[in-house]
Amino acid sequence: MAGVSAAPAPGTVDRRPKQDRSRATRQRLLEAAVSCLAEHGWAGSTVAVVAERAGVSRGAAQHHFPTREDLFTAAVEYVAEERSTALRALFPEGAEDRRVVVEALVDLYTGPLFRAALHLWVAASNEDQLRPRVTELEAKVGRETHRIAVDLLRADESKAGVRETVQGLLDMARGLGLANLLTDDRGRRERVVAQWTHLLEGAL
Amino acid sequence: MAGVSAAPAPGTVDRRPKQDRSRATRQRLLEAAVSCLAEHGWAGSTVAVVAERAGVSRGAAQHHFPTREDLFTAAVEYVAEERSTALRALFPEGAEDRRVVVEALVDLYTGPLFRAALHLWVAASNEDQLRPRVTELEAKVGRETHRIAVDLLRADESKAGVRETVQGLLDMARGLGLANLLTDDRGRRERVVAQWTHLLEGAL
Repeated sequence: MAGVSAAPAPGTVDRRPKQDRSRATRQRLLEAAVSCLAEHGWAGSTVAVVAERAGVSRGAAQHHFPTREDLFTAAVEYVAEERSTALRALFPEGAEDRRVVVEALVDLYTGPLFRAALHLWVAASNEDQLRPRVTELEAKVGRETHRIAVDLLRADESKAGVRETVQGLLDMARGLGLANLLTDDRGRRERVVAQWTHLLEGAL
Repeated sequence: MAGVSAAPAPGTVDRRPKQDRSRATRQRLLEAAVSCLAEHGWAGSTVAVVAERAGVSRGAAQHHFPTREDLFTAAVEYVAEERSTALRALFPEGAEDRRVVVEALVDLYTGPLFRAALHLWVAASNEDQLRPRVTELEAKVGRETHRIAVDLLRADESKAGVRETVQGLLDMARGLGLANLLTDDRGRRERVVAQWTHLLEGAL
Protein backbone atom coordinates (compact mmCIF):
# COMPACT_ATOMS: atom_id res chain seq x y z
CA MET A 1 0.00 0.00 0.00
CA ALA A 2 3.01 2.29 -0.29
CA GLY A 3 2.03 5.42 -2.13
CA VAL A 4 -1.45 5.59 -0.61
CA SER A 5 -0.23 6.64 2.84
CA ALA A 6 2.58 6.04 5.28
CA ALA A 7 1.59 4.03 8.36
CA PRO A 8 0.54 6.51 11.08
CA ALA A 9 2.91 6.94 13.99
CA PRO A 10 1.62 5.17 17.17
CA GLY A 11 -0.84 7.31 19.05
CA THR A 12 -1.10 9.92 16.31
CA VAL A 13 -3.84 8.38 14.17
CA ASP A 14 -5.20 11.02 11.86
CA ARG A 15 -7.92 9.59 9.68
CA ARG A 16 -8.76 12.68 7.62
CA PRO A 17 -5.43 13.22 5.92
CA LYS A 18 -5.24 9.50 5.16
CA GLN A 19 -8.65 9.61 3.48
CA ASP A 20 -7.62 12.74 1.64
CA ARG A 21 -4.44 11.12 0.45
CA SER A 22 -6.37 8.05 -0.66
CA ARG A 23 -8.85 10.24 -2.55
CA ALA A 24 -6.02 12.16 -4.20
CA THR A 25 -4.36 8.89 -5.28
CA ARG A 26 -7.65 7.63 -6.69
CA GLN A 27 -8.13 10.87 -8.60
CA ARG A 28 -4.60 10.77 -10.01
CA LEU A 29 -5.22 7.20 -11.21
CA LEU A 30 -8.53 8.14 -12.86
CA GLU A 31 -7.05 11.11 -14.69
CA ALA A 32 -4.01 9.10 -15.80
CA ALA A 33 -6.32 6.32 -17.02
CA VAL A 34 -8.30 8.67 -19.28
CA SER A 35 -5.12 10.21 -20.74
CA CYS A 36 -3.66 6.77 -21.29
CA LEU A 37 -6.81 5.49 -23.03
CA ALA A 38 -7.02 8.61 -25.22
CA GLU A 39 -3.37 8.32 -26.27
CA HIS A 40 -2.75 4.59 -26.49
CA GLY A 41 -6.18 3.00 -26.90
CA TRP A 42 -7.52 0.00 -25.01
CA ALA A 43 -4.81 -2.40 -26.16
CA GLY A 44 -2.09 -0.13 -24.76
CA SER A 45 -3.89 0.64 -21.50
CA THR A 46 -3.22 -1.57 -18.50
CA VAL A 47 -3.40 -0.94 -14.75
CA ALA A 48 0.42 -1.11 -14.58
CA VAL A 49 0.90 1.54 -17.29
CA VAL A 50 -1.61 3.85 -15.60
CA ALA A 51 -0.07 3.32 -12.13
CA GLU A 52 3.34 4.30 -13.47
CA ARG A 53 1.93 7.35 -15.22
CA ALA A 54 0.16 8.43 -12.02
CA GLY A 55 3.30 7.83 -9.91
CA VAL A 56 1.45 5.27 -7.79
CA SER A 57 2.62 1.75 -6.92
CA ARG A 58 0.92 -1.07 -8.76
CA GLY A 59 -0.29 -2.48 -5.42
CA ALA A 60 -1.93 0.82 -4.52
CA ALA A 61 -3.56 0.98 -7.94
CA GLN A 62 -4.94 -2.52 -7.51
CA HIS A 63 -6.21 -1.66 -4.05
CA HIS A 64 -8.35 1.08 -5.58
CA PHE A 65 -9.26 -0.78 -8.78
CA PRO A 66 -9.04 -4.58 -8.60
CA THR A 67 -9.49 -5.07 -12.38
CA ARG A 68 -8.61 -3.25 -15.57
CA GLU A 69 -12.34 -2.91 -16.35
CA ASP A 70 -12.94 -1.29 -12.93
CA LEU A 71 -10.23 1.28 -13.51
CA PHE A 72 -11.17 2.36 -17.02
CA THR A 73 -14.95 2.48 -16.62
CA ALA A 74 -14.53 4.42 -13.35
CA ALA A 75 -12.11 6.78 -15.10
CA VAL A 76 -14.45 7.61 -17.98
CA GLU A 77 -17.34 8.05 -15.53
CA TYR A 78 -15.29 10.33 -13.25
CA VAL A 79 -14.04 12.55 -16.05
CA ALA A 80 -17.51 12.71 -17.64
CA GLU A 81 -18.93 13.90 -14.30
CA GLU A 82 -16.17 16.50 -13.99
CA ARG A 83 -16.98 17.74 -17.49
CA SER A 84 -20.72 17.90 -16.73
CA THR A 85 -20.10 19.90 -13.57
CA ALA A 86 -17.77 22.25 -15.44
CA LEU A 87 -20.32 22.69 -18.23
CA ARG A 88 -23.11 23.63 -15.81
CA ALA A 89 -20.72 26.00 -14.01
CA LEU A 90 -20.02 27.79 -17.31
CA PHE A 91 -23.63 28.97 -17.46
CA PRO A 92 -24.77 29.37 -13.84
CA GLU A 93 -27.67 31.63 -14.84
CA GLY A 94 -28.45 29.83 -18.10
CA ALA A 95 -27.20 31.22 -21.42
CA GLU A 96 -28.66 33.99 -23.53
CA ASP A 97 -26.99 32.84 -26.72
CA ARG A 98 -27.82 29.29 -27.81
CA ARG A 99 -24.86 29.15 -30.18
CA VAL A 100 -22.46 29.42 -27.23
CA VAL A 101 -24.26 26.50 -25.58
CA VAL A 102 -24.15 24.38 -28.74
CA GLU A 103 -20.42 25.11 -29.07
CA ALA A 104 -19.82 24.07 -25.46
CA LEU A 105 -21.85 20.86 -25.96
CA VAL A 106 -19.92 20.03 -29.14
CA ASP A 107 -16.65 20.68 -27.26
CA LEU A 108 -17.58 17.74 -24.97
CA TYR A 109 -16.99 15.48 -27.96
CA THR A 110 -13.71 16.79 -29.29
CA GLY A 111 -11.31 16.45 -26.35
CA PRO A 112 -9.39 13.63 -24.65
CA LEU A 113 -12.50 12.45 -22.74
CA PHE A 114 -14.33 11.66 -25.98
CA ARG A 115 -11.25 9.91 -27.40
CA ALA A 116 -10.95 7.83 -24.25
CA ALA A 117 -14.67 6.99 -24.22
CA LEU A 118 -14.53 6.08 -27.91
CA HIS A 119 -11.67 3.62 -27.31
CA LEU A 120 -13.62 2.11 -24.44
CA TRP A 121 -16.85 1.78 -26.49
CA VAL A 122 -15.07 0.23 -29.44
CA ALA A 123 -13.20 -2.23 -27.20
CA ALA A 124 -16.48 -3.07 -25.45
CA SER A 125 -18.08 -3.96 -28.77
CA ASN A 126 -15.65 -6.91 -29.02
CA GLU A 127 -15.04 -7.78 -25.36
CA ASP A 128 -17.78 -9.54 -23.46
CA GLN A 129 -16.29 -8.63 -20.07
CA LEU A 130 -16.39 -4.96 -20.84
CA ARG A 131 -19.64 -4.64 -22.80
CA PRO A 132 -22.33 -4.61 -20.04
CA ARG A 133 -20.40 -2.12 -17.92
CA VAL A 134 -19.69 0.24 -20.77
CA THR A 135 -23.28 -0.02 -22.04
CA GLU A 136 -24.54 1.01 -18.60
CA LEU A 137 -21.97 3.80 -18.36
CA GLU A 138 -22.84 5.12 -21.82
CA ALA A 139 -26.56 5.23 -20.94
CA LYS A 140 -25.85 7.08 -17.70
CA VAL A 141 -23.52 9.65 -19.26
CA GLY A 142 -25.91 10.05 -22.21
CA ARG A 143 -28.89 10.78 -19.92
CA GLU A 144 -26.90 13.35 -17.94
CA THR A 145 -25.64 15.09 -21.09
CA HIS A 146 -29.18 15.20 -22.46
CA ARG A 147 -30.43 16.74 -19.20
CA ILE A 148 -27.73 19.41 -19.28
CA ALA A 149 -28.44 20.19 -22.94
CA VAL A 150 -32.17 20.59 -22.26
CA ASP A 151 -31.50 22.92 -19.32
CA LEU A 152 -28.87 25.08 -20.97
CA LEU A 153 -30.81 25.37 -24.24
CA ARG A 154 -34.00 26.18 -22.26
CA ALA A 155 -35.76 23.51 -24.33
CA ASP A 156 -39.37 22.73 -23.46
CA GLU A 157 -39.64 18.97 -23.89
CA SER A 158 -43.44 19.05 -23.49
CA LYS A 159 -43.55 20.48 -27.03
CA ALA A 160 -43.74 17.87 -29.82
CA GLY A 161 -40.41 17.18 -31.46
CA VAL A 162 -38.25 19.13 -28.98
CA ARG A 163 -36.87 16.05 -27.26
CA GLU A 164 -35.84 14.51 -30.60
CA THR A 165 -34.39 17.83 -31.76
CA VAL A 166 -32.06 17.91 -28.75
CA GLN A 167 -31.20 14.21 -29.14
CA GLY A 168 -30.34 14.72 -32.82
CA LEU A 169 -28.16 17.69 -31.89
CA LEU A 170 -26.17 15.52 -29.45
CA ASP A 171 -25.90 12.78 -32.09
CA MET A 172 -24.52 15.39 -34.46
CA ALA A 173 -22.04 16.51 -31.78
CA ARG A 174 -20.91 12.88 -31.39
CA GLY A 175 -20.49 12.58 -35.16
CA LEU A 176 -18.47 15.79 -35.21
CA GLY A 177 -16.24 14.29 -32.50
CA LEU A 178 -15.65 11.23 -34.67
CA ALA A 179 -14.84 13.44 -37.68
CA ASN A 180 -12.22 15.17 -35.53
CA LEU A 181 -10.46 11.94 -34.55
CA LEU A 182 -7.84 11.85 -37.32
CA THR A 183 -7.79 15.43 -38.59
CA ASP A 184 -8.33 18.88 -37.12
CA ASP A 185 -11.87 19.48 -38.32
CA ARG A 186 -12.37 22.82 -36.53
CA GLY A 187 -13.11 25.03 -39.54
CA ARG A 188 -15.82 22.81 -40.98
CA ARG A 189 -17.20 22.12 -37.50
CA GLU A 190 -17.70 25.82 -36.76
CA ARG A 191 -19.72 26.31 -39.95
CA VAL A 192 -21.88 23.24 -39.25
CA VAL A 193 -22.48 24.35 -35.66
CA ALA A 194 -23.53 27.84 -36.82
CA GLN A 195 -26.02 26.45 -39.32
CA TRP A 196 -27.44 23.78 -36.98
CA THR A 197 -27.84 26.34 -34.20
CA HIS A 198 -29.92 28.35 -36.67
CA LEU A 199 -32.10 25.29 -37.43
CA LEU A 200 -32.36 24.58 -33.71
CA GLU A 201 -33.54 28.12 -32.91
CA GLY A 202 -36.44 27.60 -35.30
CA ALA A 203 -37.39 24.28 -33.71
CA LEU A 204 -37.21 25.09 -29.99
CA MET B 1 -0.13 -18.80 -55.58
CA ALA B 2 -2.37 -21.82 -55.05
CA GLY B 3 -5.95 -20.67 -54.71
CA VAL B 4 -5.64 -17.83 -57.18
CA SER B 5 -5.55 -20.05 -60.25
CA ALA B 6 -4.16 -23.34 -61.49
CA ALA B 7 -1.24 -23.03 -63.93
CA PRO B 8 -2.67 -23.04 -67.45
CA ALA B 9 -2.02 -26.19 -69.53
CA PRO B 10 0.69 -25.68 -72.19
CA GLY B 11 -0.70 -24.08 -75.32
CA THR B 12 -4.09 -23.33 -73.73
CA VAL B 13 -3.37 -19.98 -72.10
CA ASP B 14 -6.70 -18.34 -71.27
CA ARG B 15 -6.11 -14.99 -69.70
CA ARG B 16 -9.72 -13.96 -69.05
CA PRO B 17 -10.78 -16.75 -66.70
CA LYS B 18 -7.50 -16.37 -64.79
CA GLN B 19 -8.17 -12.65 -64.36
CA ASP B 20 -11.74 -13.40 -63.36
CA ARG B 21 -10.60 -15.91 -60.79
CA SER B 22 -8.07 -13.44 -59.46
CA ARG B 23 -10.72 -10.74 -59.22
CA ALA B 24 -13.09 -13.12 -57.43
CA THR B 25 -10.36 -14.05 -54.93
CA ARG B 26 -9.61 -10.40 -54.29
CA GLN B 27 -13.29 -9.68 -53.74
CA ARG B 28 -13.67 -12.59 -51.31
CA LEU B 29 -10.67 -11.31 -49.34
CA LEU B 30 -12.06 -7.77 -49.19
CA GLU B 31 -15.48 -8.90 -47.99
CA ALA B 32 -13.95 -11.26 -45.41
CA ALA B 33 -11.70 -8.42 -44.20
CA VAL B 34 -14.64 -6.10 -43.52
CA SER B 35 -16.58 -8.81 -41.66
CA CYS B 36 -13.50 -9.70 -39.65
CA LEU B 37 -12.83 -6.08 -38.69
CA ALA B 38 -16.48 -5.51 -37.74
CA GLU B 39 -16.57 -8.63 -35.56
CA HIS B 40 -13.10 -8.79 -34.03
CA GLY B 41 -11.71 -5.28 -34.26
CA TRP B 42 -8.26 -4.27 -35.46
CA ALA B 43 -6.36 -6.27 -32.83
CA GLY B 44 -8.09 -9.49 -33.94
CA SER B 45 -7.77 -8.84 -37.66
CA THR B 46 -4.71 -10.15 -39.46
CA VAL B 47 -4.10 -11.18 -43.09
CA ALA B 48 -3.91 -14.84 -41.97
CA VAL B 49 -7.30 -14.74 -40.20
CA VAL B 50 -8.93 -13.10 -43.23
CA ALA B 51 -7.33 -15.54 -45.69
CA GLU B 52 -8.70 -18.47 -43.71
CA ARG B 53 -12.15 -16.89 -43.51
CA ALA B 54 -12.14 -16.29 -47.28
CA GLY B 55 -10.92 -19.84 -48.03
CA VAL B 56 -7.79 -18.48 -49.72
CA SER B 57 -4.18 -19.51 -49.05
CA ARG B 58 -2.08 -17.08 -47.07
CA GLY B 59 0.32 -16.80 -50.02
CA ALA B 60 -2.49 -15.83 -52.37
CA ALA B 61 -3.75 -13.26 -49.85
CA GLN B 62 -0.28 -11.74 -49.59
CA HIS B 63 0.03 -11.65 -53.37
CA HIS B 64 -3.06 -9.44 -53.50
CA PHE B 65 -2.31 -7.44 -50.35
CA PRO B 66 1.36 -7.33 -49.28
CA THR B 67 0.60 -5.72 -45.89
CA ARG B 68 -2.15 -5.77 -43.29
CA GLU B 69 -2.68 -2.03 -43.88
CA ASP B 70 -3.13 -2.65 -47.63
CA LEU B 71 -5.76 -5.30 -47.03
CA PHE B 72 -7.91 -3.45 -44.53
CA THR B 73 -7.88 0.01 -46.10
CA ALA B 74 -8.66 -1.57 -49.52
CA ALA B 75 -11.48 -3.55 -47.88
CA VAL B 76 -13.17 -0.54 -46.30
CA GLU B 77 -12.79 1.41 -49.56
CA TYR B 78 -14.23 -1.43 -51.63
CA VAL B 79 -17.25 -1.98 -49.40
CA ALA B 80 -17.87 1.78 -49.12
CA GLU B 81 -17.92 1.99 -52.95
CA GLU B 82 -20.30 -0.97 -53.14
CA ARG B 83 -22.59 0.75 -50.62
CA SER B 84 -22.47 4.05 -52.54
CA THR B 85 -23.36 2.32 -55.80
CA ALA B 86 -26.19 0.45 -54.11
CA LEU B 87 -27.51 3.66 -52.55
CA ARG B 88 -27.59 5.48 -55.89
CA ALA B 89 -29.29 2.45 -57.48
CA LEU B 90 -32.04 2.60 -54.84
CA PHE B 91 -33.18 5.96 -56.20
CA PRO B 92 -32.38 5.93 -59.94
CA GLU B 93 -34.84 8.76 -60.66
CA GLY B 94 -34.17 10.66 -57.42
CA ALA B 95 -36.56 10.31 -54.48
CA GLU B 96 -39.85 12.06 -53.88
CA ASP B 97 -39.80 11.52 -50.13
CA ARG B 98 -36.79 13.01 -48.34
CA ARG B 99 -37.43 10.94 -45.23
CA VAL B 100 -36.73 7.74 -47.18
CA VAL B 101 -33.43 9.23 -48.35
CA VAL B 102 -32.43 10.30 -44.83
CA GLU B 103 -33.25 6.80 -43.55
CA ALA B 104 -31.12 5.23 -46.29
CA LEU B 105 -28.22 7.60 -45.49
CA VAL B 106 -28.45 6.82 -41.78
CA ASP B 107 -28.50 3.11 -42.63
CA LEU B 108 -24.98 3.54 -44.08
CA TYR B 109 -23.79 4.10 -40.51
CA THR B 110 -25.50 1.27 -38.67
CA GLY B 111 -24.23 -1.85 -40.47
CA PRO B 112 -21.04 -3.91 -40.53
CA LEU B 113 -19.30 -1.43 -42.87
CA PHE B 114 -19.58 1.34 -40.29
CA ARG B 115 -18.39 -0.96 -37.51
CA ALA B 116 -15.42 -2.01 -39.62
CA ALA B 117 -14.59 1.60 -40.57
CA LEU B 118 -14.91 2.65 -36.93
CA HIS B 119 -12.40 0.00 -35.82
CA LEU B 120 -10.03 1.14 -38.56
CA TRP B 121 -10.37 4.84 -37.63
CA VAL B 122 -9.83 4.20 -33.94
CA ALA B 123 -6.81 1.97 -34.63
CA ALA B 124 -5.44 4.64 -36.99
CA SER B 125 -5.65 7.25 -34.26
CA ASN B 126 -2.95 5.31 -32.35
CA GLU B 127 -0.95 3.71 -35.17
CA ASP B 128 1.36 5.90 -37.21
CA GLN B 129 1.58 3.38 -40.06
CA LEU B 130 -2.17 3.35 -40.52
CA ARG B 131 -3.07 7.00 -39.90
CA PRO B 132 -2.19 8.71 -43.22
CA ARG B 133 -3.88 5.99 -45.29
CA VAL B 134 -7.05 5.96 -43.22
CA THR B 135 -7.18 9.78 -43.13
CA GLU B 136 -7.03 9.83 -46.94
CA LEU B 137 -9.63 7.06 -47.20
CA GLU B 138 -11.99 8.81 -44.78
CA ALA B 139 -11.77 12.07 -46.76
CA LYS B 140 -12.49 10.24 -50.02
CA VAL B 141 -15.45 8.26 -48.66
CA GLY B 142 -16.74 11.38 -46.89
CA ARG B 143 -16.69 13.44 -50.12
CA GLU B 144 -18.50 10.70 -52.05
CA THR B 145 -21.17 10.29 -49.35
CA HIS B 146 -21.70 14.06 -49.27
CA ARG B 147 -22.11 14.12 -53.06
CA ILE B 148 -24.67 11.33 -52.95
CA ALA B 149 -26.59 13.02 -50.12
CA VAL B 150 -26.73 16.32 -52.04
CA ASP B 151 -27.99 14.58 -55.18
CA LEU B 152 -30.59 12.36 -53.51
CA LEU B 153 -31.91 15.16 -51.28
CA ARG B 154 -32.01 17.51 -54.32
CA ALA B 155 -30.15 20.06 -52.19
CA ASP B 156 -29.10 23.30 -53.88
CA GLU B 157 -25.68 24.06 -52.42
CA SER B 158 -25.61 27.51 -53.99
CA LYS B 159 -28.12 28.55 -51.30
CA ALA B 160 -26.55 29.80 -48.05
CA GLY B 161 -26.44 27.19 -45.30
CA VAL B 162 -27.49 24.23 -47.46
CA ARG B 163 -24.02 22.69 -47.63
CA GLU B 164 -23.65 22.87 -43.82
CA THR B 165 -27.15 21.50 -43.32
CA VAL B 166 -26.27 18.39 -45.34
CA GLN B 167 -22.88 18.05 -43.60
CA GLY B 168 -24.54 18.27 -40.18
CA LEU B 169 -27.05 15.63 -41.25
CA LEU B 170 -24.21 13.25 -42.14
CA ASP B 171 -22.49 14.06 -38.83
CA MET B 172 -25.75 13.22 -37.08
CA ALA B 173 -25.95 9.95 -39.04
CA ARG B 174 -22.39 9.11 -37.91
CA GLY B 175 -23.31 9.90 -34.30
CA LEU B 176 -26.40 7.71 -34.57
CA GLY B 177 -24.15 4.91 -35.84
CA LEU B 178 -21.94 5.29 -32.78
CA ALA B 179 -24.99 5.22 -30.48
CA ASN B 180 -25.96 1.93 -32.12
CA LEU B 181 -22.62 0.26 -31.46
CA LEU B 182 -23.41 -1.39 -28.11
CA THR B 183 -27.21 -1.38 -28.05
CA ASP B 184 -30.01 -1.64 -30.59
CA ASP B 185 -30.94 2.02 -30.81
CA ARG B 186 -33.51 1.66 -33.61
CA GLY B 187 -36.56 3.07 -31.81
CA ARG B 188 -34.90 6.29 -30.69
CA ARG B 189 -33.12 6.62 -34.03
CA GLU B 190 -36.37 6.51 -36.01
CA ARG B 191 -37.85 9.33 -33.92
CA VAL B 192 -34.72 11.47 -34.28
CA VAL B 193 -34.63 10.86 -38.05
CA ALA B 194 -38.32 11.80 -38.40
CA GLN B 195 -37.86 15.05 -36.50
CA TRP B 196 -34.65 16.12 -38.23
CA THR B 197 -36.09 15.26 -41.67
CA HIS B 198 -38.85 17.71 -40.78
CA LEU B 199 -36.29 20.41 -39.84
CA LEU B 200 -34.29 19.60 -42.98
CA GLU B 201 -37.32 20.08 -45.24
CA GLY B 202 -37.60 23.62 -43.94
CA ALA B 203 -33.90 24.34 -44.54
CA LEU B 204 -33.45 22.96 -48.08
